[in-house]
Amino acid sequence: MHAGTLIQGIGDDAAVLGLPPGHELLVTTDLSLEDIHFRRHWASPPSIGHRTLLRGLSDIAAMGGVPLAAFLSLGVPRNLPQPWVDEFLTGLVRLATRFGVSLAGGDTSESPEKILADIVVVGSVPRGRAVLRSGARVGDRIYVTGQLGAGAARLARLYSARQTRIGRPRDRGWPIPRIAIGQFLRQKRIARSMIDLSDGLSTDLSHICEESEVGAEITEQAIPRARLDRARVGMKFALHGGDDYELLFTADPRARVPRIIDGISITQIGEITRARKLILCGAEGRRAELHAEGWEHFGQS
Amino acid sequence: MHAGTLIQGIGDDAAVLGLPPGHELLVTTDLSLEDIHFRRHWASPPSIGHRTLLRGLSDIAAMGGVPLAAFLSLGVPRNLPQPWVDEFLTGLVRLATRFGVSLAGGDTSESPEKILADIVVVGSVPRGRAVLRSGARVGDRIYVTGQLGAGAARLARLYSARQTRIGRPRDRGWPIPRIAIGQFLRQKRIARSMIDLSDGLSTDLSHICEESEVGAEITEQAIPRARLDRARVGMKFALHGGDDYELLFTADPRARVPRIIDGISITQIGEITRARKLILCGAEGRRAELHAEGWEHFGQS
Repeated sequence: MHAGTLIQGIGDDAAVLGLPPGHELLVTTDLSLEDIHFRRHWASPPSIGHRTLLRGLSDIAAMGGVPLAAFLSLGVPRNLPQPWVDEFLTGLVRLATRFGVSLAGGDTSESPEKILADIVVVGSVPRGRAVLRSGARVGDRIYVTGQLGAGAARLARLYSARQTRIGRPRDRGWPIPRIAIGQFLRQKRIARSMIDLSDGLSTDLSHICEESEVGAEITEQAIPRARLDRARVGMKFALHGGDDYELLFTADPRARVPRIIDGISITQIGEITRARKLILCGAEGRRAELHAEGWEHFGQS
Repeated sequence: MHAGTLIQGIGDDAAVLGLPPGHELLVTTDLSLEDIHFRRHWASPPSIGHRTLLRGLSDIAAMGGVPLAAFLSLGVPRNLPQPWVDEFLTGLVRLATRFGVSLAGGDTSESPEKILADIVVVGSVPRGRAVLRSGARVGDRIYVTGQLGAGAARLARLYSARQTRIGRPRDRGWPIPRIAIGQFLRQKRIARSMIDLSDGLSTDLSHICEESEVGAEITEQAIPRARLDRARVGMKFALHGGDDYELLFTADPRARVPRIIDGISITQIGEITRARKLILCGAEGRRAELHAEGWEHFGQS
């Protein structure tokens, strides 16, 4: 889909962009701070650049939109080696290129001590068609894309090796924003509400419920858990872990939801309810209230 | 002018905005870091909030655009008193309200040690009518709005009192973005190129010259210097000081440029030349090359 046009990028007071006729604008911002949202020695510079843009693109995907341009504000301490910045940008630009997104502005400043990166992504969506968090209705089925928990499980491993400066961090399984799936679900009018799983299933599902003024029941055994080194990750990572960047959406029970979209499995995990709480249905009919336990930032741990 | 519509603000993955038909989108981002761009004890929290948004609004003004919405990413250290944040937001929101701008998103994070604020402002401009830096033509007259140098002169005073923690910082003469003037100059097709004076006259004029592939001559005696405590500020502040947020524009010599727009004086200070350098014409026919000496950040001093 044609997302719009970059008319004037870096090199003026503001960027100038054209949207396709009949489209609305989407804007998302996301701030990543060293030692709060990432650690310099726990991930490679390209993977941090990738993640920075990923978070913005994933937000656009969750609206059913198409990304158009990104703006990066980067603050780096004076003593940071230039190759770090170059590699960070390499990771970011590689992801931008893959999704046809122009890096249209932003700037680099000296920061007092730590790295910080604020990303803005703008995109477009046909007028009135953005998929909001507030559209879930009682009886809707709840679906997720892909597998959950890998991001948090990987992070837990790094935590357990804390203080051990790991050499070259391993960069495996970088998440990809579900742009094509988000668009498909919007175009086919399948998703009535949608959010991306950046803070963890329990937290992000609670956002859908709050904005839609509903509750939800999900089935523990239905949750698609990721594999890490061939073993399934623990349930707590799939339930509460962040940084998966899959999509969670709800659909009318009569809607025909494909089992695979864009090569990614789509799994029904529960149902929207009138009672305004989250219920986790376990084995043998066990039911327990599920509390939002979003991912803890380093700074809060 | 109708700038557009905020359809969905804070509370979803991305904000949704509608632009007026036949308009293009303007996007600008600006990062402000404590001890690089501002000092916590040299200015009041509301004035820092004001300045944060001002920088974004001023960029929209310099395109001849109308601001629509702002997005703030704020990072604050854990030990920062909450009233500081509240007052910062008060200053920012007061300016937003004055210019009809919605605070449509963004978030607050814990930062490791220092305050940081990244502002995004989106606006709109009729298609093809944004006033770029690249539009200056040889023979164009060069104009500035208002008076120059007050921002830098005030800062120099604070510098000279460095290490002396001043009590309640004085908040006088907060600059206002020249939105109405920028629009007027665009609507009347007066400005062929335009930039806002955030980095200082010599630096910002050099940006116009670079993007337009021209040079400029300006007349020292014509430069409108601000007054501070009734005395005119030194010429160096007017020539090189930043943080004035006036507009610099060029116009065809045949254009009728009002001497006052929106209550603010408009002063012709020079002319665009073919020779690609900046010349400062002083008293008694003295001519000297003018070098861009933009404002030095704290971190670079």
